[in-house]
Amino acid sequence: MLIGKVVGSVVATRKDEKIEGRKLLVVQVHNHRNQPVDQYIVAVDSVQAGSGDMVLFATGSSARQTETTEGRPVDAVIMAIVDSWDLGGANVYEKWQRA
Amino acid sequence: MLIGKVVGSVVATRKDEKIEGRKLLVVQVHNHRNQPVDQYIVAVDSVQAGSGDMVLFATGSSARQTETTEGRPVDAVIMAIVDSWDLGGANVYEKWQRA
Amino acid sequence: MLIGKVVGSVVATRKDEKIEGRKLLVVQVHNHRNQPVDQYIVAVDSVQAGSGDMVLFATGSSARQTETTEGRPVDAVIMAIVDSWDLGGANVYEKWQRA
Amino acid sequence: MLIGKVVGSVVATRKDEKIEGRKLLVVQVHNHRNQPVDQYIVAVDSVQAGSGDMVLFATGSSARQTETTEGRPVDAVIMAIVDSWDLGGANVYEKWQRA
Amino acid sequence: MLIGKVVGSVVATRKDEKIEGRKLLVVQVHNHRNQPVDQYIVAVDSVQAGSGDMVLFATGSSARQTETTEGRPVDAVIMAIVDSWDLGGANVYEKWQRA
Repeated sequence: MLIGKVVGSVVATRKDEKIEGRKLLVVQVHNHRNQPVDQYIVAVDSVQAGSGDMVLFATGSSARQTETTEGRPVDAVIMAIVDSWDLGGANVYEKWQRA
Repeated sequence: MLIGKVVGSVVATRKDEKIEGRKLLVVQVHNHRNQPVDQYIVAVDSVQAGSGDMVLFATGSSARQTETTEGRPVDAVIMAIVDSWDLGGANVYEKWQRA
Repeated sequence: MLIGKVVGSVVATRKDEKIEGRKLLVVQVHNHRNQPVDQYIVAVDSVQAGSGDMVLFATGSSARQTETTEGRPVDAVIMAIVDSWDLGGANVYEKWQRA
Repeated sequence: MLIGKVVGSVVATRKDEKIEGRKLLVVQVHNHRNQPVDQYIVAVDSVQAGSGDMVLFATGSSARQTETTEGRPVDAVIMAIVDSWDLGGANVYEKWQRA
Repeated sequence: MLIGKVVGSVVATRKDEKIEGRKLLVVQVHNHRNQPVDQYIVAVDSVQAGSGDMVLFATGSSARQTETTEGRPVDAVIMAIVDSWDLGGANVYEKWQRA
Protein backbone atom coordinates (compact mmCIF):
# COMPACT_ATOMS: atom_id res chain seq x y z
CA MET A 1 0.00 0.00 0.00
CA LEU A 2 0.95 3.60 -0.35
CA ILE A 3 -0.04 6.62 1.70
CA GLY A 4 -1.92 9.50 0.10
CA LYS A 5 -4.11 12.49 0.81
CA VAL A 6 -7.64 12.79 -0.50
CA VAL A 7 -7.61 15.99 -2.54
CA GLY A 8 -10.63 15.77 -4.80
CA SER A 9 -13.30 13.68 -6.45
CA VAL A 10 -14.32 12.68 -9.96
CA VAL A 11 -17.79 12.81 -11.45
CA ALA A 12 -18.57 10.38 -14.25
CA THR A 13 -22.10 9.85 -15.50
CA ARG A 14 -21.35 7.46 -18.32
CA LYS A 15 -19.48 4.50 -16.86
CA ASP A 16 -19.44 0.74 -16.56
CA GLU A 17 -22.59 -0.23 -14.68
CA LYS A 18 -20.55 -2.13 -12.09
CA ILE A 19 -19.13 1.09 -10.69
CA GLU A 20 -22.52 2.76 -10.22
CA GLY A 21 -22.69 4.32 -6.77
CA ARG A 22 -18.99 4.05 -6.09
CA LYS A 23 -17.26 7.20 -4.89
CA LEU A 24 -14.20 8.03 -6.99
CA LEU A 25 -11.62 10.05 -5.07
CA VAL A 26 -8.48 11.78 -6.29
CA VAL A 27 -5.58 10.81 -4.04
CA GLN A 28 -2.29 12.70 -4.00
CA VAL A 29 0.46 10.23 -3.18
CA HIS A 30 2.77 11.12 -0.26
CA ASN A 31 6.11 9.60 0.65
CA HIS A 32 6.78 8.08 4.05
CA ARG A 33 8.07 11.42 5.34
CA ASN A 34 4.63 12.84 4.48
CA GLN A 35 5.78 14.90 1.52
CA PRO A 36 3.58 14.95 -1.59
CA VAL A 37 5.21 13.28 -4.59
CA ASP A 38 4.50 13.78 -8.26
CA GLN A 39 1.94 10.99 -8.51
CA TYR A 40 -1.78 10.63 -8.03
CA ILE A 41 -4.40 7.96 -8.37
CA VAL A 42 -8.17 7.84 -8.63
CA ALA A 43 -9.37 5.28 -6.09
CA VAL A 44 -12.72 3.92 -5.04
CA ASP A 45 -13.53 4.73 -1.43
CA SER A 46 -14.49 1.82 0.82
CA VAL A 47 -14.10 3.51 4.21
CA GLN A 48 -15.98 6.81 3.84
CA ALA A 49 -12.86 8.90 3.54
CA GLY A 50 -13.24 12.64 3.24
CA SER A 51 -11.32 15.51 1.71
CA GLY A 52 -8.00 16.08 3.48
CA ASP A 53 -7.86 12.61 5.04
CA MET A 54 -4.59 10.74 4.88
CA VAL A 55 -5.38 7.27 3.61
CA LEU A 56 -3.89 3.94 2.62
CA PHE A 57 -4.76 2.63 -0.82
CA ALA A 58 -4.18 -0.76 -2.41
CA THR A 59 -3.83 -1.31 -6.15
CA GLY A 60 -4.22 -4.07 -8.69
CA SER A 61 -6.33 -7.16 -8.03
CA SER A 62 -5.98 -6.44 -4.31
CA ALA A 63 -8.17 -3.40 -4.87
CA ARG A 64 -11.06 -5.78 -5.60
CA GLN A 65 -10.99 -7.55 -2.22
CA THR A 66 -13.40 -5.22 -0.44
CA GLU A 67 -17.17 -5.57 -0.47
CA THR A 68 -17.39 -2.25 -2.26
CA THR A 69 -15.14 -3.28 -5.13
CA GLU A 70 -15.46 -7.06 -5.56
CA GLY A 71 -15.69 -8.08 -9.21
CA ARG A 72 -15.64 -4.49 -10.41
CA PRO A 73 -13.33 -2.85 -12.98
CA VAL A 74 -11.37 -0.78 -10.49
CA ASP A 75 -7.65 -1.01 -9.79
CA ALA A 76 -7.32 1.18 -6.69
CA VAL A 77 -9.20 1.26 -3.42
CA ILE A 78 -8.90 3.30 -0.25
CA MET A 79 -9.01 0.61 2.45
CA ALA A 80 -7.95 2.56 5.54
CA ILE A 81 -7.88 6.06 6.97
CA VAL A 82 -4.53 6.76 8.59
CA ASP A 83 -4.53 7.98 12.17
CA SER A 84 -0.77 8.24 12.52
CA TRP A 85 2.54 6.77 11.52
CA ASP A 86 6.07 6.88 12.80
CA LEU A 87 9.56 6.53 11.39
CA GLY A 88 12.40 5.34 13.59
CA GLY A 89 10.25 5.92 16.64
CA ALA A 90 9.43 9.54 15.80
CA ASN A 91 5.88 10.52 14.94
CA VAL A 92 5.55 11.73 11.33
CA TYR A 93 1.83 12.28 11.10
CA GLU A 94 -0.86 12.52 13.71
CA LYS A 95 -4.41 12.99 12.47
CA TRP A 96 -5.66 14.89 15.46
CA GLN A 97 -2.95 17.53 15.30
CA ARG A 98 -3.38 18.55 11.69
CA ALA A 99 -4.07 22.18 10.95
CA MET B 1 -7.41 4.46 -12.08
CA LEU B 2 -5.77 7.22 -13.95
CA ILE B 3 -7.24 10.04 -16.00
CA GLY B 4 -6.45 10.38 -19.69
CA LYS B 5 -7.62 11.92 -22.93
CA VAL B 6 -8.62 9.83 -25.92
CA VAL B 7 -6.30 11.00 -28.69
CA GLY B 8 -6.37 8.25 -31.29
CA SER B 9 -7.15 4.69 -32.22
CA VAL B 10 -5.27 1.60 -33.35
CA VAL B 11 -6.16 -0.67 -36.26
CA ALA B 12 -5.00 -4.27 -36.03
CA THR B 13 -6.26 -6.90 -38.46
CA ARG B 14 -4.18 -9.80 -37.25
CA LYS B 15 -4.87 -10.28 -33.55
CA ASP B 16 -5.93 -12.75 -30.92
CA GLU B 17 -9.47 -13.80 -31.79
CA LYS B 18 -10.70 -12.82 -28.32
CA ILE B 19 -10.21 -9.14 -29.08
CA GLU B 20 -12.20 -9.21 -32.33
CA GLY B 21 -14.61 -6.30 -32.39
CA ARG B 22 -13.00 -4.49 -29.50
CA LYS B 23 -12.20 -0.81 -30.05
CA LEU B 24 -8.57 -0.01 -29.22
CA LEU B 25 -8.07 3.62 -28.23
CA VAL B 26 -4.87 5.56 -27.66
CA VAL B 27 -5.12 7.41 -24.33
CA GLN B 28 -2.76 10.22 -23.38
CA VAL B 29 -2.35 10.14 -19.61
CA HIS B 30 -3.03 13.40 -17.73
CA ASN B 31 -2.11 14.30 -14.17
CA HIS B 32 -4.68 15.41 -11.62
CA ARG B 33 -4.15 19.03 -12.58
CA ASN B 34 -5.20 18.06 -16.13
CA GLN B 35 -1.76 18.39 -17.67
CA PRO B 36 -0.65 15.75 -20.17
CA VAL B 37 2.24 13.64 -18.90
CA ASP B 38 4.79 11.65 -20.87
CA GLN B 39 2.82 8.41 -20.82
CA TYR B 40 0.18 6.78 -22.94
CA ILE B 41 -1.73 3.53 -23.01
CA VAL B 42 -3.77 1.63 -25.55
CA ALA B 43 -7.03 0.67 -23.85
CA VAL B 44 -10.16 -1.21 -24.87
CA ASP B 45 -13.22 1.01 -24.81
CA SER B 46 -16.20 -0.25 -22.78
CA VAL B 47 -18.20 2.98 -22.59
CA GLN B 48 -18.28 4.29 -26.17
CA ALA B 49 -15.72 6.98 -25.56
CA GLY B 50 -14.86 9.31 -28.42
CA SER B 51 -11.88 11.34 -29.51
CA GLY B 52 -11.14 14.19 -27.09
CA ASP B 53 -13.06 12.65 -24.20
CA MET B 54 -11.44 12.70 -20.79
CA VAL B 55 -11.72 9.19 -19.41
CA LEU B 56 -10.82 6.93 -16.50
CA PHE B 57 -8.99 3.74 -17.30
CA ALA B 58 -8.19 0.71 -15.15
CA THR B 59 -5.22 -1.57 -15.74
CA GLY B 60 -4.12 -5.10 -14.95
CA SER B 61 -6.58 -7.84 -14.09
CA SER B 62 -9.09 -5.13 -13.16
CA ALA B 63 -9.26 -4.27 -16.86
CA ARG B 64 -10.95 -7.63 -17.44
CA GLN B 65 -13.91 -7.00 -15.14
CA THR B 66 -16.19 -5.43 -17.76
CA GLU B 67 -18.49 -7.37 -20.08
CA THR B 68 -16.46 -6.11 -23.01
CA THR B 69 -13.15 -7.41 -21.71
CA GLU B 70 -13.87 -10.47 -19.54
CA GLY B 71 -11.41 -13.29 -20.16
CA ARG B 72 -9.63 -11.40 -22.91
CA PRO B 73 -5.92 -10.62 -23.26
CA VAL B 74 -6.20 -6.92 -22.54
CA ASP B 75 -4.59 -5.04 -19.66
CA ALA B 76 -6.29 -1.65 -19.91
CA VAL B 77 -9.94 -0.63 -20.21
CA ILE B 78 -11.73 2.69 -20.35
CA MET B 79 -14.48 2.22 -17.78
CA ALA B 80 -15.81 5.77 -17.39
CA ILE B 81 -16.07 9.07 -19.21
CA VAL B 82 -15.18 11.94 -16.91
CA ASP B 83 -17.68 14.78 -16.59
CA SER B 84 -15.65 16.82 -14.12
CA TRP B 85 -13.26 16.69 -11.24
CA ASP B 86 -12.15 19.05 -8.53
CA LEU B 87 -9.07 19.58 -6.39
CA GLY B 88 -9.36 21.20 -2.99
CA GLY B 89 -12.86 22.34 -3.84
CA ALA B 90 -11.87 24.07 -7.09
CA ASN B 91 -13.07 22.71 -10.41
CA VAL B 92 -10.21 21.45 -12.57
CA TYR B 93 -12.11 20.06 -15.53
CA GLU B 94 -15.67 20.45 -16.66
CA LYS B 95 -16.70 18.53 -19.76
CA TRP B 96 -19.33 20.96 -20.91
CA GLN B 97 -17.02 23.95 -20.90
CA ARG B 98 -14.28 22.52 -23.05
CA ALA B 99 -13.37 24.37 -26.19
CA MET C 1 -1.44 -2.33 -23.88
CA LEU C 2 1.63 -0.66 -25.22
CA ILE C 3 2.98 -0.44 -28.74
CA GLY C 4 6.37 -1.88 -29.61
CA LYS C 5 8.53 -3.09 -32.45
CA VAL C 6 9.79 -6.65 -32.69
CA VAL C 7 13.56 -6.31 -32.78
CA GLY C 8 14.91 -9.70 -31.82
CA SER C 9 14.35 -13.09 -30.26
CA VAL C 10 15.62 -15.07 -27.31
CA VAL C 11 16.84 -18.68 -27.32
CA ALA C 12 16.53 -20.61 -24.05
CA THR C 13 17.05 -24.35 -23.91
CA ARG C 14 16.68 -24.81 -20.19
CA LYS C 15 13.31 -23.43 -19.17
CA ASP C 16 10.08 -24.20 -17.39
CA GLU C 17 8.41 -26.98 -19.35
CA LYS C 18 5.23 -24.94 -19.73
CA ILE C 19 6.95 -22.53 -22.09
CA GLU C 20 8.27 -25.23 -24.42
CA GLY C 21 7.55 -24.29 -28.01
CA ARG C 22 6.68 -20.70 -27.21
CA LYS C 23 8.41 -18.04 -29.30
CA LEU C 24 10.11 -15.41 -27.12
CA LEU C 25 10.46 -12.07 -28.90
CA VAL C 26 12.35 -8.96 -27.85
CA VAL C 27 10.07 -5.95 -28.20
CA GLN C 28 11.36 -2.38 -28.20
CA VAL C 29 8.68 -0.19 -26.67
CA HIS C 30 7.57 2.85 -28.70
CA ASN C 31 5.58 5.85 -27.55
CA HIS C 32 2.33 6.90 -29.21
CA ARG C 33 4.21 9.17 -31.60
CA ASN C 34 6.10 6.07 -32.77
CA GLN C 35 9.41 6.99 -31.15
CA PRO C 36 11.39 4.24 -29.43
CA VAL C 37 11.65 4.72 -25.68
CA ASP C 38 14.23 3.35 -23.27
CA GLN C 39 12.28 0.23 -22.41
CA TYR C 40 11.98 -3.28 -23.78
CA ILE C 41 10.17 -6.46 -22.92
CA VAL C 42 10.49 -10.11 -23.83
CA ALA C 43 7.03 -11.30 -24.85
CA VAL C 44 5.53 -14.57 -26.01
CA ASP C 45 4.18 -14.33 -29.53
CA SER C 46 0.56 -15.42 -30.05
CA VAL C 47 -0.04 -13.90 -33.49
CA GLN C 48 2.98 -14.98 -35.53
CA ALA C 49 4.64 -11.61 -35.45
CA GLY C 50 7.90 -11.15 -37.31
CA SER C 51 10.96 -8.99 -37.01
CA GLY C 52 10.18 -5.33 -37.66
CA ASP C 53 6.46 -5.68 -37.01
CA MET C 54 4.80 -3.05 -34.87
CA VAL C 55 2.76 -4.91 -32.26
CA LEU C 56 0.53 -4.51 -29.24
CA PHE C 57 1.50 -6.39 -26.12
CA ALA C 58 -0.37 -7.01 -22.88
CA THR C 59 1.31 -7.62 -19.54
CA GLY C 60 0.55 -9.21 -16.19
CA SER C 61 -2.20 -11.78 -15.74
CA SER C 62 -3.78 -10.47 -18.94
CA ALA C 63 -0.83 -11.96 -20.80
CA ARG C 64 -2.14 -15.40 -19.89
CA GLN C 65 -5.53 -15.00 -21.59
CA THR C 66 -4.51 -16.35 -25.00
CA GLU C 67 -4.50 -20.01 -25.99
CA THR C 68 -0.75 -19.82 -26.39
CA THR C 69 -0.10 -18.56 -22.89
CA GLU C 70 -2.90 -19.86 -20.65
CA GLY C 71 -1.61 -21.12 -17.29
CA ARG C 72 2.01 -20.50 -18.23
CA PRO C 73 4.66 -18.48 -16.37
CA VAL C 74 4.76 -15.58 -18.81
CA ASP C 75 3.93 -11.98 -18.04
CA ALA C 76 3.88 -10.45 -21.53
CA VAL C 77 2.19 -11.50 -24.76
CA ILE C 78 2.00 -10.03 -28.24
CA MET C 79 -1.72 -10.18 -28.96
CA ALA C 80 -2.00 -8.03 -32.10
CA ILE C 81 0.01 -6.82 -35.05
CA VAL C 82 -0.60 -3.13 -35.62
CA ASP C 83 -1.67 -2.05 -39.12
CA SER C 84 -1.89 1.64 -38.33
CA TRP C 85 -2.75 4.20 -35.71
CA ASP C 86 -3.63 7.86 -35.68
CA LEU C 87 -3.35 10.77 -33.28
CA GLY C 88 -5.78 13.66 -33.47
CA GLY C 89 -6.95 12.45 -36.87
CA ALA C 90 -3.46 12.33 -38.40
CA ASN C 91 -1.91 9.01 -39.34
CA VAL C 92 1.18 8.20 -37.26
CA TYR C 93 2.01 4.75 -38.55
CA GLU C 94 0.87 2.82 -41.58
CA LYS C 95 2.23 -0.69 -41.97
CA TRP C 96 2.14 -0.77 -45.74
CA GLN C 97 4.18 2.38 -46.15
CA ARG C 98 7.13 1.44 -44.03
CA ALA C 99 10.54 1.47 -45.66
CA MET D 1 10.55 -9.53 -4.32
CA LEU D 2 12.49 -6.53 -3.20
CA ILE D 3 14.60 -5.98 -0.11
CA GLY D 4 13.70 -3.30 2.41
CA LYS D 5 14.20 -2.18 5.97
CA VAL D 6 11.36 -1.88 8.45
CA VAL D 7 11.42 1.75 9.54
CA GLY D 8 8.01 2.42 11.02
CA SER D 9 4.40 1.43 11.40
CA VAL D 10 0.99 2.83 10.53
CA VAL D 11 -2.01 3.13 12.82
CA ALA D 12 -5.43 3.10 11.19
CA THR D 13 -8.59 2.74 13.24
CA ARG D 14 -11.11 3.11 10.44
CA LYS D 15 -10.32 0.46 7.85
CA ASP D 16 -11.76 -2.38 5.84
CA GLU D 17 -12.79 -5.06 8.34
CA LYS D 18 -10.69 -7.64 6.53
CA ILE D 19 -7.49 -5.97 7.66
CA GLU D 20 -8.44 -5.89 11.33
CA GLY D 21 -5.53 -7.13 13.43
CA ARG D 22 -3.00 -6.94 10.62
CA LYS D 23 0.24 -5.12 11.41
CA LEU D 24 1.01 -2.42 8.84
CA LEU D 25 4.71 -1.67 8.57
CA VAL D 26 6.51 1.07 6.70
CA VAL D 27 9.31 -0.45 4.63
CA GLN D 28 12.13 1.63 3.15
CA VAL D 29 13.22 -0.06 -0.07
CA HIS D 30 16.94 -0.85 -0.43
CA ASN D 31 18.86 -1.77 -3.56
CA HIS D 32 20.87 -4.97 -3.85
CA ARG D 33 23.98 -3.16 -2.58
CA ASN D 34 22.01 -2.37 0.58
CA GLN D 35 21.61 1.34 -0.12
CA PRO D 36 18.23 2.94 0.62
CA VAL D 37 16.43 4.13 -2.50
CA ASP D 38 13.76 6.78 -2.85
CA GLN D 39 10.86 4.38 -2.49
CA TYR D 40 8.80 2.96 0.34
CA ILE D 41 5.85 0.69 0.78
CA VAL D 42 3.39 -0.07 3.53
CA ALA D 43 3.24 -3.85 3.87
CA VAL D 44 1.36 -6.30 6.05
CA ASP D 45 3.68 -8.31 8.26
CA SER D 46 3.33 -12.09 8.12
CA VAL D 47 6.59 -13.07 9.84
CA GLN D 48 6.70 -10.93 12.98
CA ALA D 49 9.27 -8.53 11.63
CA GLY D 50 10.49 -5.76 13.88
CA SER D 51 11.87 -2.28 13.49
CA GLY D 52 15.28 -2.30 11.80
CA ASP D 53 14.87 -5.75 10.29
CA MET D 54 15.88 -6.23 6.68
CA VAL D 55 13.01 -8.02 4.97
CA LEU D 56 11.74 -9.37 1.68
CA PHE D 57 8.34 -8.20 0.53
CA ALA D 58 6.11 -9.40 -2.28
CA THR D 59 3.56 -7.22 -4.04
CA GLY D 60 0.39 -7.57 -6.07
CA SER D 61 -1.77 -10.68 -5.92
CA SER D 62 1.26 -12.57 -4.61
CA ALA D 63 0.91 -10.55 -1.43
CA ARG D 64 -2.34 -12.41 -0.74
CA GLN D 65 -0.80 -15.89 -0.70
CA THR D 66 0.01 -15.98 3.02
CA GLU D 67 -2.40 -17.08 5.75
CA THR D 68 -2.26 -13.58 7.17
CA THR D 69 -3.31 -11.89 3.94
CA GLU D 70 -5.47 -14.35 1.98
CA GLY D 71 -8.51 -12.69 0.44
CA ARG D 72 -7.71 -9.33 1.98
CA PRO D 73 -7.34 -5.93 0.28
CA VAL D 74 -3.58 -5.67 0.69
CA ASP D 75 -1.03 -5.44 -2.09
CA ALA D 76 2.23 -5.90 -0.18
CA VAL D 77 3.37 -8.46 2.38
CA ILE D 78 6.57 -9.06 4.28
CA MET D 79 7.13 -12.77 3.75
CA ALA D 80 10.71 -13.22 4.99
CA ILE D 81 13.26 -11.68 7.31
CA VAL D 82 16.64 -11.51 5.61
CA ASP D 83 19.60 -13.04 7.43
CA SER D 84 22.17 -12.22 4.79
CA TRP D 85 22.80 -11.84 1.10
CA ASP D 86 25.81 -11.81 -1.15
CA LEU D 87 26.78 -10.31 -4.50
CA GLY D 88 29.40 -11.99 -6.64
CA GLY D 89 30.45 -14.12 -3.70
CA ALA D 90 31.00 -11.17 -1.33
CA ASN D 91 28.76 -10.71 1.67
CA VAL D 92 26.67 -7.52 1.44
CA TYR D 93 24.55 -7.83 4.55
CA GLU D 94 24.80 -10.03 7.59
CA LYS D 95 22.08 -9.68 10.18
CA TRP D 96 24.22 -10.62 13.14
CA GLN D 97 26.88 -8.03 12.45
CA ARG D 98 24.66 -5.00 12.23
CA ALA D 99 25.38 -2.11 14.54
CA MET E 1 9.67 -10.97 -19.07
CA LEU E 2 12.91 -9.16 -18.57
CA ILE E 3 16.48 -10.33 -18.93
CA GLY E 4 18.83 -10.33 -15.95
CA LYS E 5 22.02 -11.80 -14.60
CA VAL E 6 22.13 -13.89 -11.44
CA VAL E 7 24.52 -12.03 -9.15
CA GLY E 8 23.79 -13.33 -5.67
CA SER E 9 21.48 -15.11 -3.31
CA VAL E 10 19.49 -14.32 -0.19
CA VAL E 11 19.38 -16.34 3.04
CA ALA E 12 16.25 -16.06 5.15
CA THR E 13 15.60 -18.40 8.04
CA ARG E 14 12.39 -16.85 9.30
CA LYS E 15 9.93 -16.80 6.41
CA ASP E 16 6.47 -17.81 5.32
CA GLU E 17 6.35 -21.60 5.44
CA LYS E 18 5.24 -21.76 1.81
CA ILE E 19 8.62 -20.59 0.61
CA GLU E 20 10.59 -23.20 2.58
CA GLY E 21 13.16 -24.80 0.33
CA ARG E 22 12.86 -22.21 -2.43
CA LYS E 23 16.10 -20.71 -3.68
CA LEU E 24 16.02 -16.90 -3.61
CA LEU E 25 18.36 -15.35 -6.16
CA VAL E 26 19.39 -11.74 -6.63
CA VAL E 27 18.99 -10.80 -10.29
CA GLN E 28 20.58 -7.69 -11.79
CA VAL E 29 18.31 -6.48 -14.59
CA HIS E 30 19.91 -5.95 -18.01
CA ASN E 31 18.53 -4.08 -20.99
CA HIS E 32 18.11 -5.68 -24.40
CA ARG E 33 21.60 -4.56 -25.41
CA ASN E 34 22.91 -6.54 -22.45
CA GLN E 35 23.84 -3.54 -20.33
CA PRO E 36 23.07 -3.67 -16.60
CA VAL E 37 20.42 -1.16 -15.55
CA ASP E 38 19.79 0.34 -12.13
CA GLN E 39 17.25 -2.27 -11.09
CA TYR E 40 17.32 -5.65 -9.39
CA ILE E 41 14.85 -8.23 -8.22
CA VAL E 42 14.91 -11.16 -5.85
CA ALA E 43 13.38 -14.10 -7.70
CA VAL E 44 12.64 -17.72 -6.91
CA ASP E 45 14.62 -20.09 -9.09
CA SER E 46 12.63 -22.75 -10.95
CA VAL E 47 15.28 -23.83 -13.47
CA GLN E 48 18.41 -24.39 -11.36
CA ALA E 49 20.08 -21.20 -12.48
CA GLY E 50 23.56 -20.46 -11.16
CA SER E 51 25.65 -17.41 -10.46
CA GLY E 52 26.52 -15.52 -13.62
CA ASP E 53 23.73 -17.05 -15.70
CA MET E 54 21.68 -14.74 -17.89
CA VAL E 55 18.05 -15.54 -17.20
CA LEU E 56 14.48 -14.58 -18.01
CA PHE E 57 12.21 -13.77 -15.10
CA ALA E 58 8.46 -13.25 -14.92
CA THR E 59 6.74 -11.11 -12.32
CA GLY E 60 3.34 -10.74 -10.70
CA SER E 61 0.78 -13.53 -10.69
CA SER E 62 2.62 -15.07 -13.65
CA ALA E 63 5.45 -15.83 -11.27
CA ARG E 64 3.16 -18.35 -9.56
CA GLN E 65 2.56 -20.49 -12.65
CA THR E 66 5.51 -22.85 -12.15
CA GLU E 67 5.44 -26.02 -10.01
CA THR E 68 8.02 -24.44 -7.75
CA THR E 69 5.98 -21.33 -7.03
CA GLU E 70 2.29 -22.25 -7.35
CA GLY E 71 0.17 -20.74 -4.56
CA ARG E 72 3.18 -19.22 -2.84
CA PRO E 73 3.78 -15.58 -1.80
CA VAL E 74 6.39 -14.82 -4.44
CA ASP E 75 6.13 -12.21 -7.18
CA ALA E 76 9.14 -13.08 -9.34
CA VAL E 77 10.40 -16.34 -10.81
CA ILE E 78 13.31 -17.29 -13.01
CA MET E 79 11.63 -19.44 -15.66
CA ALA E 80 14.39 -19.77 -18.27
CA ILE E 81 18.14 -19.63 -18.66
CA VAL E 82 19.08 -17.60 -21.71
CA ASP E 83 21.38 -19.23 -24.26
CA SER E 84 21.47 -16.28 -26.63
CA TRP E 85 19.54 -13.41 -28.09
CA ASP E 86 19.81 -11.21 -31.11
CA LEU E 87 18.80 -7.68 -32.10
CA GLY E 88 18.16 -6.84 -35.74
CA GLY E 89 19.82 -10.06 -36.78
CA ALA E 90 23.05 -9.44 -34.83
CA ASN E 91 23.94 -11.63 -31.89
CA VAL E 92 23.97 -9.70 -28.60
CA TYR E 93 24.68 -12.47 -26.14
CA GLU E 94 25.91 -16.02 -26.59
CA LYS E 95 26.21 -18.11 -23.46
CA TRP E 96 29.04 -20.28 -24.69
CA GLN E 97 31.30 -17.39 -25.56
CA ARG E 98 31.22 -15.60 -22.25
CA ALA E 99 34.52 -15.03 -20.51
